[in-house]
Amino acid sequence: MSDKRTAVFVVMDGVGDRPLKELGGKTPLQAAKTPTFDRLSAQGQNGLMNVIGPGITPGSDTAHLALFGYDPIADYPGRGPLEAFGAGLETKPGDVAFRSNFATVDSKMVVLDRRAGRNFTPEEQAELQAALDGIEIDGVKVRFIATVEHRGALVLEGEGLYAEISDVDPHETGKKILTVRPLKPEAEKTAKVVNELMRVAHERMKGLETNKERAKKGIPLANAILLRGPGRHSDIPSLPERYGIKAAVIAGGALYIGTAKYVGMEHIPVEGQTGTIDTNFDNIAKKTIETIRADYNYVFVHIKAPDNASHDGNAKEKVLAIEKTDEMVGTILDAVADDVVIAITGDHTTAVSVGEHQCDPVPIVVWSNFIRPDSVEKFSEIDAAKGALHTIRGIDVMPILLGYSGHIEKFGA
Amino acid sequence: MSDKRTAVFVVMDGVGDRPLKELGGKTPLQAAKTPTFDRLSAQGQNGLMNVIGPGITPGSDTAHLALFGYDPIADYPGRGPLEAFGAGLETKPGDVAFRSNFATVDSKMVVLDRRAGRNFTPEEQAELQAALDGIEIDGVKVRFIATVEHRGALVLEGEGLYAEISDVDPHETGKKILTVRPLKPEAEKTAKVVNELMRVAHERMKGLETNKERAKKGIPLANAILLRGPGRHSDIPSLPERYGIKAAVIAGGALYIGTAKYVGMEHIPVEGQTGTIDTNFDNIAKKTIETIRADYNYVFVHIKAPDNASHDGNAKEKVLAIEKTDEMVGTILDAVADDVVIAITGDHTTAVSVGEHQCDPVPIVVWSNFIRPDSVEKFSEIDAAKGALHTIRGIDVMPILLGYSGHIEKFGA
Repeated sequence: MSDKRTAVFVVMDGVGDRPLKELGGKTPLQAAKTPTFDRLSAQGQNGLMNVIGPGITPGSDTAHLALFGYDPIADYPGRGPLEAFGAGLETKPGDVAFRSNFATVDSKMVVLDRRAGRNFTPEEQAELQAALDGIEIDGVKVRFIATVEHRGALVLEGEGLYAEISDVDPHETGKKILTVRPLKPEAEKTAKVVNELMRVAHERMKGLETNKERAKKGIPLANAILLRGPGRHSDIPSLPERYGIKAAVIAGGALYIGTAKYVGMEHIPVEGQTGTIDTNFDNIAKKTIETIRADYNYVFVHIKAPDNASHDGNAKEKVLAIEKTDEMVGTILDAVADDVVIAITGDHTTAVSVGEHQCDPVPIVVWSNFIRPDSVEKFSEIDAAKGALHTIRGIDVMPILLGYSGHIEKFGA
Repeated sequence: MSDKRTAVFVVMDGVGDRPLKELGGKTPLQAAKTPTFDRLSAQGQNGLMNVIGPGITPGSDTAHLALFGYDPIADYPGRGPLEAFGAGLETKPGDVAFRSNFATVDSKMVVLDRRAGRNFTPEEQAELQAALDGIEIDGVKVRFIATVEHRGALVLEGEGLYAEISDVDPHETGKKILTVRPLKPEAEKTAKVVNELMRVAHERMKGLETNKERAKKGIPLANAILLRGPGRHSDIPSLPERYGIKAAVIAGGALYIGTAKYVGMEHIPVEGQTGTIDTNFDNIAKKTIETIRADYNYVFVHIKAPDNASHDGNAKEKVLAIEKTDEMVGTILDAVADDVVIAITGDHTTAVSVGEHQCDPVPIVVWSNFIRPDSVEKFSEIDAAKGALHTIRGIDVMPILLGYSGHIEKFGA
């Protein structure tokens, strides 16, 4: 192990694409003016990446788990803990977490509105949160946080909890909240707790001021919760435990922050960072430089804008998002190029022509001022195919980045 | 399976590198004049190789284990058995081996000198070896061999021995030799034997002529042994068992010979073969040709010189070592080209600019007079990236070599 550098990992969400008619048969990465990315490609090592595996279309959560060096199948805790972390409700090994909706039910627990009208004031959210957070059932403690609109995250803390239970949510109105069954014998206690929680939550929620007011206004009551996406925080080593590194996440979206925190990164908030094209790229650059200059060994920077543009079928905006990220990375490297090993990539392909995640691999470039170059001259899906990294998997990125930046011990003598 | 050839595997230790200023931005492999390697690259198949895995910096022992076709993590026995084999003390499955130092202790077993002054005459080594070799404790037989200076190898033979024990060596002077604890329950017997061995060895060593003489001369006494790097010879199939081949090692360093013998190769000694640039390349070529013409199916030839030059930061000497190896391989192929499949590679990158093993992949070329060529024209880290092998792992080399040379049966019907 030689001199240690900070590993910088920039992910443009959904950046991979296919040739687009509206771009004259080029992909958005080919069409975009990206002087910094192209310089990194010319001086560094390029390749294609199947984030999960060949032919597998990654979800955002599993993709990032893989990109952080974890097995996206064996180590995947389900959406619950990742969302909970993103919402600021930290879980620990053994906890079971859910995504939650406020919902409207009648006196027989028949669902009338799965989102309870969707709109909530901060005051309403606070009252509902206070009513739910702290419930105890059979020695299991319930923690709850309201997030955006009708959404929230709910965590069960206690011994012997498992996520393998059937659904609460009937997924349509006019049907009763479902009685949960264990999907494996060990989950019997969890199923019992959740069934009782449905009853207790309804009891506590129905009489709240929020609902008296909503009844007066004729707005759907928030008198029940629907839970989904159960997941158990598994006992995997965090990045600090695994590599002895201090790792940071700079991201605008809760799921990315949540997944990063789940594996032990610290969230560094940036003023004006959002999940859209209007995110403050200057502030992200400044904060990234600051974080690299502090004692962090690894900094993950997530830019959501290319994915949004893709889902909207907006090729022009995708090109713009890529160009703005290129400029941002240029600013970062102007300040700290000699102190870093940097990788630029995406978490999956979101084809503008389809508007959804696709299985096509994404390009990746790894650069440092000492790294061996290959023959690639431009950063794109097409050019990257000729690079020295050939085809890697998402799970390979973390060792490559940490290996080159001096944070992995020699194996053997 | 068609006609059988001899698989020849040439490893230039630490040959991989990065662009070097002193070589005009070229790597040593790019800068060296290597007409033979370049011909093999032009006619054969090239690629890059992560010897252990992406981002992992290999040690010499784990790297060679992988290159011989074994899982470098699951099949790694620790340094002890590999060193013991290298020293000429062969272990068998179930044995536990250690690296050993002669040391100086006082009457309370407090360590005064961890290397007992470092210098020993052959006569002293012989007397100390005789005192230690053959000790028996609880049915466990101790075998010992003195090697270089204060160093030696020690093997425990017996039933139910395990390597998971805590350290003997306090790793500093002024501290007592440590009482060994088992790190898993099965290792309790081994810990007991080692603790008793420390006492018995001290008893046997303190009264030797060697120590009477050393006391007179005021040289530190060799009245104890410090053991480290315990490893258990695991029950893996040897190369002959696995592939039905007869395999030979031609190497100058004990560790390489040891690792090769551990997997069932026979050591073919070569007059004048050393671990430096002054090794006798002509004799190595002659002996390799002889071994290929004998009934060996696989010949591993190890050239240590490039690694030494790298650790010394000596780019010129690294280039020279590569050029001499190129010439040597030319001589070998002039004699036996039609009878072999040959692979040329390194076991890891040792960057001259850093002077240590690094995680960068190494180039590999596989040639035979029947193999399909790719578009690579020169043997180097940069050119190999465009080759038909793309990126392989160390563990892939043995099947590729033995497959092309006709020593792996068709799998299936």
